[in-house]
This record gives sequence, structure tokens and C-alpha cells, in this order.
Amino acid sequence: MSVDTLKIRREGIDTYNENVAYLNRECSIYRAEGFQALSKIMVSANGNRLLAVLNVVDDHSIVQPGELGLSLQAFDHIDAGEGALVTVDHAEPPESMDAVRRKINGERLNQSDFSDICNDIVETRYSKMEMAAFLVATGQNSLDRDELLYLTRAMLKSGEQMNWHEPLVADKHCIGGIPGNRTSMLVVPIVSAHGMLIPKTSSRAITSPSGTADTMEVLTNVNLTPTQLLDLVRQERGCLAWGGTAKLAPVDDMLISVERPLGIDSQGQMVASILSKKLAAGSTHLIVDIPVGPTAKVRHMRQALALRKLFEFVGDRLNIHLEVMITDGRQPIGNGIGPVLEARDIMKVLNNDPDAPADLRQKSLQLSGRIIEFDPDVRGGQGYNIARDILESGRACVKMNNIIKAQGDREIDLTAGKLSHQICAERDGVVTNIDNFQTAKIARIAGAPQEKKAGVDLLKKIGDKVGKGEPLYTIHAEFPADFTFAKNLALKNSGYNIGDGDQVLKSMISF
Amino acid sequence: MSVDTLKIRREGIDTYNENVAYLNRECSIYRAEGFQALSKIMVSANGNRLLAVLNVVDDHSIVQPGELGLSLQAFDHIDAGEGALVTVDHAEPPESMDAVRRKINGERLNQSDFSDICNDIVETRYSKMEMAAFLVATGQNSLDRDELLYLTRAMLKSGEQMNWHEPLVADKHCIGGIPGNRTSMLVVPIVSAHGMLIPKTSSRAITSPSGTADTMEVLTNVNLTPTQLLDLVRQERGCLAWGGTAKLAPVDDMLISVERPLGIDSQGQMVASILSKKLAAGSTHLIVDIPVGPTAKVRHMRQALALRKLFEFVGDRLNIHLEVMITDGRQPIGNGIGPVLEARDIMKVLNNDPDAPADLRQKSLQLSGRIIEFDPDVRGGQGYNIARDILESGRACVKMNNIIKAQGDREIDLTAGKLSHQICAERDGVVTNIDNFQTAKIARIAGAPQEKKAGVDLLKKIGDKVGKGEPLYTIHAEFPADFTFAKNLALKNSGYNIGDGDQVLKSMISF
Repeated sequence: MSVDTLKIRREGIDTYNENVAYLNRECSIYRAEGFQALSKIMVSANGNRLLAVLNVVDDHSIVQPGELGLSLQAFDHIDAGEGALVTVDHAEPPESMDAVRRKINGERLNQSDFSDICNDIVETRYSKMEMAAFLVATGQNSLDRDELLYLTRAMLKSGEQMNWHEPLVADKHCIGGIPGNRTSMLVVPIVSAHGMLIPKTSSRAITSPSGTADTMEVLTNVNLTPTQLLDLVRQERGCLAWGGTAKLAPVDDMLISVERPLGIDSQGQMVASILSKKLAAGSTHLIVDIPVGPTAKVRHMRQALALRKLFEFVGDRLNIHLEVMITDGRQPIGNGIGPVLEARDIMKVLNNDPDAPADLRQKSLQLSGRIIEFDPDVRGGQGYNIARDILESGRACVKMNNIIKAQGDREIDLTAGKLSHQICAERDGVVTNIDNFQTAKIARIAGAPQEKKAGVDLLKKIGDKVGKGEPLYTIHAEFPADFTFAKNLALKNSGYNIGDGDQVLKSMISF
Repeated sequence: MSVDTLKIRREGIDTYNENVAYLNRECSIYRAEGFQALSKIMVSANGNRLLAVLNVVDDHSIVQPGELGLSLQAFDHIDAGEGALVTVDHAEPPESMDAVRRKINGERLNQSDFSDICNDIVETRYSKMEMAAFLVATGQNSLDRDELLYLTRAMLKSGEQMNWHEPLVADKHCIGGIPGNRTSMLVVPIVSAHGMLIPKTSSRAITSPSGTADTMEVLTNVNLTPTQLLDLVRQERGCLAWGGTAKLAPVDDMLISVERPLGIDSQGQMVASILSKKLAAGSTHLIVDIPVGPTAKVRHMRQALALRKLFEFVGDRLNIHLEVMITDGRQPIGNGIGPVLEARDIMKVLNNDPDAPADLRQKSLQLSGRIIEFDPDVRGGQGYNIARDILESGRACVKMNNIIKAQGDREIDLTAGKLSHQICAERDGVVTNIDNFQTAKIARIAGAPQEKKAGVDLLKKIGDKVGKGEPLYTIHAEFPADFTFAKNLALKNSGYNIGDGDQVLKSMISF
């Protein structure tokens, strides 16, 4: 039932990742078609189609009868220009919701079901509540590993796929949850200094105090166009860019935008998300880092092993060489939590500074060594030593500086936030435990990652002896409100446990 | 982290049941607080609080820095007037989402979990996607009957509860799905003519071609204020009003606004929805009508029996006298489908017209009889005869006319839509089956319920003999576009099966 045409009008309203269309209540089309407010409509112009939520407007200065207002995103998406003619129809619910309903009813879905669902999602036929229904229906253990494979493949095929035209494209990915864990910024210079291709794209923080893209941004520009990224990687063999500009596995981003606010997060969806993104980025060899610890995302070794099997099953069938490293996730990695503090740690390791955090250095060398052993010319067991040579010789530092220069030089300021406060031990003893969540939360409340210099700087780690009143960590902030809030949070719960030597939390991992 | 104040501005934008707030991108609060578009914010004014989705505006004519625009619904809800000062905060995710996540993980929830969830929903702390997550997590068979009881109780307590100060307040409810099934419009005059209290409120059609409120509206006003309804019921002992004005079990309406577009619908949620509404309306005695048939909502007798047990379990524990009637749902009830055509059938039955549809009359008498037997002074087994006496003596018709007059007299026009087309039999034989969905869909496409006179008028029912070319039903419409569309749909699939006498679909019910 296509109806008469309307003139497009660009509304200066930013509705983020939801398309909204505005129609005057007196518009004849609204009256004739019985559109209800917030019903979904299909807008067609110029061969482009767009699904949008309909808002009905009484104010003629916003939209007049005969016009169709579009929010900024919707206007850009329809790409037809101000005043262009569009037609409007009732949007039918997406057909693939049938499959979602079957899944809710406990049925098993096949490859074409998942493909249909991902196609409908990428073409914005799903509302946020329909995506939520899909996520809950496929969450937890309701997908078996074959269904997970189908989902991953469908997510991969929902967008563009890069091809580097090389037999070995290395990558690493950590499932997250450990503050300060910026190993990518050491792995990339080491591995690319060895000559291997490692075009690393990273995310910005969503719920954490910093993402690799946020920390790298302290040192250089991370917003590269696809062409810039290509040229850079050809020249340096590696990069550390923000992944948001490429259209890789777009369904993944759309699902994440619903998953995060809902706080739902299943192992299956994590595997599909990571592998679809890495395959779309053209990776052929991948190390997945799974930290285990009582305040990490994965809390028990058996969970880590089950997750490893899932990664291996899907990875093998999608033809990526995948290895999982289960790592020590008992406490933050490095000392700094927050973009500038983390960047400072990275530069200390690269400069072979004796004050550089040993755990960050050690973990990065382990990961780099495993990746270097993907190189068929490297003898098994030699990767770690090669990585250490590259770091200690200063070649990693030179490579990092070249990458920084190539991505876009800028003035680097590694001084921490000017407001600072030390949190001190309340008794003599040994640090037995550090809470990943609490330290991350304090850093975030202090302003990270929006305020690059804000965060938490750890002075003691698990196993360190402390005296009563001795500082455990320093909170840095830029603004008084953030500062007070973060201090109060830390005074309520510092995130540190001080006890006796025999109470020290043991690592579940041995290298 | 409360921030500075903003001036409220009413925006003429109808965002239906979602609150939207508009903030200028240049507003200092937006910049200082780092609000992201579409993040949820908490607006406080005058002691009222409101959760709203944030849209960021570049157009100063819509909202200026220092102002906070509110969509129509949000403006009404905050109830502070144009130019009033409000404060804005980041909205925290609702705490009870923890319980939803536990349910997703397969845990059992208790009464306080469901109470917290319903409280948060009614205070608009849930976004649509959070409600979708809740619905999927509690859908299908994932609630046991105790959890269903907790949910029903929590939904009931989410709103106001009426008290009629009488020992016996009768009601009836059909689970829906059968076109033309307007028995309430006969049950109410019969039962109230007997002197029993039956304050019936009904819904408008959402996905069907007419709801009882739509059909009753052909005869009288159905939009009564709570006071009007009270006075009317005191005077006439019964009413047939639209239920939308009372604030009964508001969580139910909010969940339905998500459930319908998602097309998810579980037996548990149906029971909770119906019983919370009826208990909130102050009903003490309730007949639930469950039609069974191959194109009804309930398709097998064992399903109907399981649903009956659920109704009984929850009803008994919430202290309502509840009886379930499983009825014949093989085909539409009555002849007309659509407001005017249905109202015509009703008036024929009330006027004892020999052309009145026998099935509508018979079913209404059965239901009325069961309700009349709730009266302690009526001997078991006498209800049906009493109901028939009331109908045949004309007392039901007098009562209906009194109710119509009391709700608000209007000119009644029972002529069907002026555009009409007959769909005819393609062979000689017997009507073996009529599809509830298809006939409802044709009536809806023809314009019902927006166009009161549009719909389908059945001339033959199951078991009737027909000759080739003999009319089966008439499509009525008011507008040519609707008319053509409905005709084409009927020509593709009439919804009728014509076969031999031994193929007639048998009723699963015997009275």
C-alpha cells in the first residue's frame, strides 16, 4: 500500500543509532493511512529504503503537512537531499522474527535462519526491542556450538571483509575485564618489528576506564580512514587504530549497542562477536587471551577451558588458525589505569626503563612470542626469546615511534591529572587481592577515559609487603566533582585486601 | 551527580508511550556531563521524576541551550508547566534488571523479585528493550505456576484497585482470537437485568478487526471517566465501557505494548495479564472463555485444559471465584465481523429477531447462565433458563437501551459500508471449515475497526449447504483502496473450505 509522496526535511535532531521520522498530525497521509505514533514506517527515495520510528508532530515549525522530517542519522542514510520526494509505507515486522520466536520456543535454528536474522538486522528492520528478544533467546546456553558457528558466519557475512593478500595476517584479542591490560600496544610493535603483518584495530572503552584506542590516542591519531590504514600497514606491517571506521561485521556493533545497556553477555555471543570481527578484518592467525581470576570475566578454570573449546570449534570451521592463551586475571596488569597512565607504562616498557611494570612486560612478551611462532621460519619454542631480543634491543621502541609518526604525530603529554589523592593501607601486611571491578570503577568515576589524565596509579600489587599508612595507589583527576566522587568511592571500598602472607591469592596459571 | 537547572519547553512531538527529552548540543550541561544521544536521563521537577530517552538537537528553534524540550507525553507526565525549572541526571539502569538477568540464567524468581520488576516498570525505569528482555526471559514455559502467581500479584499491585463494596462483582473474559465474538454485549444486559453487578470494561482492537469497545461505540459513548463509570454502574448494575481510562494494572498495558509488536505471547503472560486486570477492576466472580479450534488461539483440547488449570491455580490463590468455559472456536461467532456489522447482530439477538445469529445467541445465553448461577439464590442448573427468559421477555433489550442512554445517546446507523462485494462458492457442497485468521484479516484490510462500517458479513457457516456460485460472505468497505485490497486478499484465499458432508470439521465441545 504505497501512498503519495512527501518532501524530505532534515531535522537537527540526533537520535543516535535509531532512525526517527517526523510527520505532521494534519498531514493527509497520516490521517488516511492511520499511522500510529511510534509505529515503524518504511521510507523510500532514490532507490534507498529506510526503516524509521514515526513521531507525530503538532508544531508546524518542526514539520509541515506534506513534509517528512528525518533525524540526522536517517537523513544521512536515505541520502536523497533536502526537499527530495519520498514515499512512506507501513513497515511490516521483519520476517525473520519468526525464527526468533521459534528459538524462544526452544527450537534449534539452522544456517539460513541466522543468515536471515543478520540480514534483517543489518538492514535496520529490527527495532531495539526485537534485537533484545533475539539476544535473550540466543543467550546463555541456548545456542549449541553448531548454532554458534551459524551465527558467527552470518555476522561475518553481514558486512565487508578485508583481504590483505598475504598468507599470514596475525592478530590478538583479549576478552576484556582486566584494567590496564594494554598488551596490544607492545605486541604490535614487537611482532611487526619481526616483519609479520599485524593490522590491529581496537575499540574505545564502553564500560571500562580505557580501551586500547583511548590509550593509543594519547600518543597519536587513531581515527584512520580505510585507505590511510591500508597505506600505513603496507609501510609499517602494523598499526594501532580505532576499529570504528571500517564496516566490519556491522551486526556485531548493532547487537552490542543493545547488549551493553541490558548487561547481558553470554559466552556464545562473545565468541561470535570476536571471531566475526577478526575474520572480517582478514586475520588468518589469532591469539585469544582469556584472563582467569575471581574478579575477571572468567572466574574458574573449567569455564575458561569450556570457552577455549568454543573458540577452537568455531575458529577451526571458519578457517582461522586460532590459539587460546589462558592468563592470570587476578589483578590489573601494569600500574596505570586510565589512558595517560597506561600510555606511560607502555613507553616505560618500550624504553626498557627499570621502573617498567614487570607483569605488563612479561605478559606482552609471552603473547608476542606465541604470535611470532606462527611464522613458519621460527623454530618452536624460540618465539619468546625473539620477542625479548626485539624489545631489549630497542627495535620495538623504534617501530612504535614509526607507527606513532605514521598515524599522525602530536604533542605527547604523559603527566597525570593535577588533582591527586593517595589511598593508604589500614594495617601492616601483604597485598592479598586487588579487585579488578572496584579499581576500574574508581578510575572511571575519576574521569577516565573522557579525561585522558584521570585514573588510578597502582603503587602495590599482589604479594607486595605494605606498612600501615603506606600508599597503595594514587587517584588522579582533572575536575573537583569527579575527584571527590572517586575519593569517596575508594574510601568506602579501596579494592585492596591486606592480609598475611599465606592469604595471598594464588595464580591459577603457571607459565 | 545532580547538575544545574534547565527550563522545560513543551515540544509538539507525539512519541506515544516513550518519553523523549531534547537537549541542545551546545548546552553546557550536555558538554559537561558527557550525555550521549539516546542515553537515558532522569528529569526531576516539582518532586516529580521522569525517565526519558535523550535526543540531542542542533536546531535552536526546537530547543535552545538552557532549555530541556519534552515530548507531549513526557511534558504531561512531569506536570510542571512551561518554563518550570528541572534538573537532569544520568539515569542508572533499573536495579531489578539483576533479577531479569538471573531469570535469563535459568534461576527461579521470588515474590519480591517480581514486585521490584513491576515497580521499576511502572515507574518507567525500563526501556522497551529491557521490557523485551523480561518478556522473553519469562515467556513460554520458563515460569512455573508459583512464579506466575507472583507475577500476577505484582502486576495487580502496580496500579489502583477498585472496590465496589458488594459481595459479588461478576465479570467475563474471552482469551480472544475469534472474530465476531461479541458475547459481552449480550451477557452484560442479561446479567445486570437479573440484578447482578457486572461492571464490564473492554479493550479496543489492537490486531483484530474489532474489540468490544469498538463495537459498543457504534451504539453509544464508551469513553467514561472513572466517576461516570461509577455512577452508571450504581444506576444500571452494568456497563460496557472502554477500559483504557482507569489505571488498572498499568504494567499489563506497558508489557502488552512490547509483546504485541514482537508477536510473542505465552500462556503464562496471558493468565497474568487477564487476572491482574480483573482483580484490579474489583471482580469477585469471573468466567473465562477459552475457544478451541484449529484456527483459534488454543488449538488442542489438552492445551485448553492446561490453560484452565493455570487460571484456576492463580485465581484460587488470589481469591477470585473463577470458572473456565471451554467453547467452540472452529469459526467466527455471529455473522458480522467489524463494528457496525457486529452491533447489528447484537441488536437482532436482543430484539429476538428470527434472523439473529443462533450461535451468538446460544453462546451468550450459556455464558450468562453460568454467571447467573454465581447468585447464591439461583438453584444449580437454572441459570440458562433464567437468562433465556430475560432475553425472550425483552428485559435484556430494555436494559441495553438504558445502558446505551446512560453512557451517552447518539444517532445509531447500522448500515454496512457502501462498497460491497460478494465472495461466492467455487463448487457445490457443504462449508467444512472457516478460517478465523483469514476472515479477520479480510475484515481488517477492508478498514475495520477504524472504519466502523467496514468488515465481512458471513452468509454461510460450517455445515451449511452451498451451490456453486452462491455467495459465502459480503465484504463491506468505505474507501476504494481498502476495498480493492480486501477483495484481492479474499480472491487469493477466501478462508472458506467447501467439501462433502463427511468432511465437516467437528466441534471439540459438546454442551
